[in-house]
Amino acid sequence: MSVHTLFVTLDILGVFAFAISGATAAMQRRLDLFGVVVIAFVTACGGGLVRDLCIGAIPPAGLSNWIYLAVAIVAALTTIGAYRFVERLAYPVLLFDAVGLGLFAVTGSHKALQYGHNTEVAILLGMITAVGGGVGRDVLLNRVPVILQKEIYASAALVGASIEVLGEGSGWSTNWLPWVAMSICFVLRMLALKYGWHMRWVAMPRD
Amino acid sequence: MSVHTLFVTLDILGVFAFAISGATAAMQRRLDLFGVVVIAFVTACGGGLVRDLCIGAIPPAGLSNWIYLAVAIVAALTTIGAYRFVERLAYPVLLFDAVGLGLFAVTGSHKALQYGHNTEVAILLGMITAVGGGVGRDVLLNRVPVILQKEIYASAALVGASIEVLGEGSGWSTNWLPWVAMSICFVLRMLALKYGWHMRWVAMPRD
Amino acid sequence: MSVHTLFVTLDILGVFAFAISGATAAMQRRLDLFGVVVIAFVTACGGGLVRDLCIGAIPPAGLSNWIYLAVAIVAALTTIGAYRFVERLAYPVLLFDAVGLGLFAVTGSHKALQYGHNTEVAILLGMITAVGGGVGRDVLLNRVPVILQKEIYASAALVGASIEVLGEGSGWSTNWLPWVAMSICFVLRMLALKYGWHMRWVAMPRD
Repeated sequence: MSVHTLFVTLDILGVFAFAISGATAAMQRRLDLFGVVVIAFVTACGGGLVRDLCIGAIPPAGLSNWIYLAVAIVAALTTIGAYRFVERLAYPVLLFDAVGLGLFAVTGSHKALQYGHNTEVAILLGMITAVGGGVGRDVLLNRVPVILQKEIYASAALVGASIEVLGEGSGWSTNWLPWVAMSICFVLRMLALKYGWHMRWVAMPRD
Repeated sequence: MSVHTLFVTLDILGVFAFAISGATAAMQRRLDLFGVVVIAFVTACGGGLVRDLCIGAIPPAGLSNWIYLAVAIVAALTTIGAYRFVERLAYPVLLFDAVGLGLFAVTGSHKALQYGHNTEVAILLGMITAVGGGVGRDVLLNRVPVILQKEIYASAALVGASIEVLGEGSGWSTNWLPWVAMSICFVLRMLALKYGWHMRWVAMPRD
Repeated sequence: MSVHTLFVTLDILGVFAFAISGATAAMQRRLDLFGVVVIAFVTACGGGLVRDLCIGAIPPAGLSNWIYLAVAIVAALTTIGAYRFVERLAYPVLLFDAVGLGLFAVTGSHKALQYGHNTEVAILLGMITAVGGGVGRDVLLNRVPVILQKEIYASAALVGASIEVLGEGSGWSTNWLPWVAMSICFVLRMLALKYGWHMRWVAMPRD
């Protein structure tokens, strides 16, 4: 499998995992068929859409490349048609989701650099690519975004995006840099899941 | 009445109906004068604003063409000043709303094609033009967007946008194509209202 | 102190005040460290981000200029680390917030004019620059935006932006015009606070 094929495969797996997570959340809120597809699509492509608007990539890839919509629809229909099976998939879904997180953080920041933007823009937009869809899902489902309450999700994306951007800025080889950045993001996220880091809330001083 | 005049008239009626729907919802949440105007404007122009950002039409027409803001303000003031009368208008408002839905689906997808975008982008943005304002209204009013819970509203816009885009792609005459696309969207929506299709929820499998 | 230095200083004070207001609201919702920083940043820079997307200023200044992010982080950490002290700061925060409101209304509309947009676009985007961040904060915190419920906040920004835009259109000197526009917005807001205008709700007719 060539590097390109692998990247495309991982990209689709990431979209699929994000879309499953969106569809599952939408079903828990008892949305209808259309609502489940929309939330699946927004969760998978919303972050990339915001990134593309901010870097001037018109039209956003999520709208112009049919494969994203198709994968989101398949994921939504899968979730609806096999809800109990998908529920049993919880661990694989979390795994794909972590892969998607790492991949989107890296590809998002890479795309921002390719469009000629600076380090800060690229890092921030890499993170936004990875977590923006989940924020859109939560806003549409009328709840406070979970990433603002659980620390090691967006932080992992931030680390992945930073490694990619600083590495590219240092002229490191792009043959292995994306893999390192993505892997560190992925491992951070999986460790956070395994050790329950995402369950810990930073205690806020209050009166 | 020329075709152009008719189009402009329908456009303004659509904006007016959408703005009335927004203002009514805002009043039910007991927002103040400013809030009612903002929600009316967002409901009427929010979808077009997102479309314009996605196709690179800068600045968005909703901001640059004063007629939209003026119509939204008139609709908001009408709703406030004659709330009981507007309530009795329920059927005409739903009628205008369905006209607006069809019109915005068609003109939104047509504008995306004019900016050189592909079939998928045009269909999706046609639908987003028609329903995006209602989503914005519901997000600002802190509730799950109704279009994610009622199936035949956005679906009708999707059908209208698809007919317009596929028809233009097939080289059909633009003299009657928009009317066909708009009418089918309108009829679908009115049938859904008449037969209560929008009241049916797709039963979701749950544990 | 030169005019430029003064403008930059006021700009940073405005960002700081908006960020403090966001961080305080986020802490009241018991978000974690990451959530508090995000809400602080969105409150301070969200309005400018929407303005920049609408006028075609790519990438948005809030993402590309590190000083905004740095100030937002400092404000968030200050709020977390000295919550009781910040609470005692209520009056200075409201003061800075009113300064920020006036400043952002004026600089936002000025930037839209500089990008060649018309009067309506500039006035609307001046207001959106000033109040958009607070709307984003409230949407993310899952509540109806306060500016839709309290009348004299956004209205003051609208007045400030209108004076700036109409003044520039009339060829008035830009040496003192921004100060007049900003001051009127600031005074309106402070008077509204002092006399409790923001506590009054317009009574809506209801059945």
